[in-house]
Amino acid sequence: MKFRTAARADVPAVLQLLADDDISRDRGFGDAPVAEDVDAAIWAAFEEIDADPNNELIVADDDGEVVGTCQLTFTPGLSRHGARRLTIEAVRVRADRRGAGLGRELMRYALTRARERGCRIAQLTTDKRREDAHRFYAGLGFTASHEGLKLAL
Amino acid sequence: MKFRTAARADVPAVLQLLADDDISRDRGFGDAPVAEDVDAAIWAAFEEIDADPNNELIVADDDGEVVGTCQLTFTPGLSRHGARRLTIEAVRVRADRRGAGLGRELMRYALTRARERGCRIAQLTTDKRREDAHRFYAGLGFTASHEGLKLAL
Repeated sequence: MKFRTAARADVPAVLQLLADDDISRDRGFGDAPVAEDVDAAIWAAFEEIDADPNNELIVADDDGEVVGTCQLTFTPGLSRHGARRLTIEAVRVRADRRGAGLGRELMRYALTRARERGCRIAQLTTDKRREDAHRFYAGLGFTASHEGLKLAL
Repeated sequence: MKFRTAARADVPAVLQLLADDDISRDRGFGDAPVAEDVDAAIWAAFEEIDADPNNELIVADDDGEVVGTCQLTFTPGLSRHGARRLTIEAVRVRADRRGAGLGRELMRYALTRARERGCRIAQLTTDKRREDAHRFYAGLGFTASHEGLKLAL
């Protein structure tokens, strides 16, 4: 298993992973594009992530097959004596590869990247309905100390 | 009241606001620097924020006096059809200016910036002990749909 930054060619597989999720389907993201006709907004987002040193789209690559993903955002800040923080978004493991420790490996890779980039805190939010996810992140040492608030614009 | 991007000269006042908070004090950030001897890590963080189009350090400026602050991070992503999101961090209103609607004005400014930047979601986390904050954000339309997980590195 190799963890690496996503290339353009990985985008359809990443979209498939993002769509393959009950809660995401509720957001109207059911039928993910899987071919070259990914829409312009998504290509633009990929290009922006790819060009931004503070954003990394990560894939778990199993001999050429994308089986997991997450996005890392490194944010400079004045709080905590100028500490950089890592925010993790859009964590997914392919349905047929769950329960075998891949998510844990992916998160360990994310936390290693955070340390390499000098982050002193890592954070993420997870839907309150995802009870398995809460246990998973608690096992990695995360503390549910905060409310995660969202507002659609 | 004017809301604007922070300049170098605002940094000591912003640090004072970040320090003036019971929970932050617990993190060992009790005695904020208030003069030119702000340490190098904090200046480096400020310079990085200032140079990054996806980060904005905002101040509420009342006739030259900094009385509130927050940091805005705009993050491109493939989820939700390539939607950009706003993450809000480090929201503070000076103790003697609380309860008069300034926090609400500051957040409305943040959400206006988010819309201008094409964000389709705004998010933040708030310590579960900050009960006043939960009511405040609920009043602005935020939903506490997620757990906010943190891990010190």
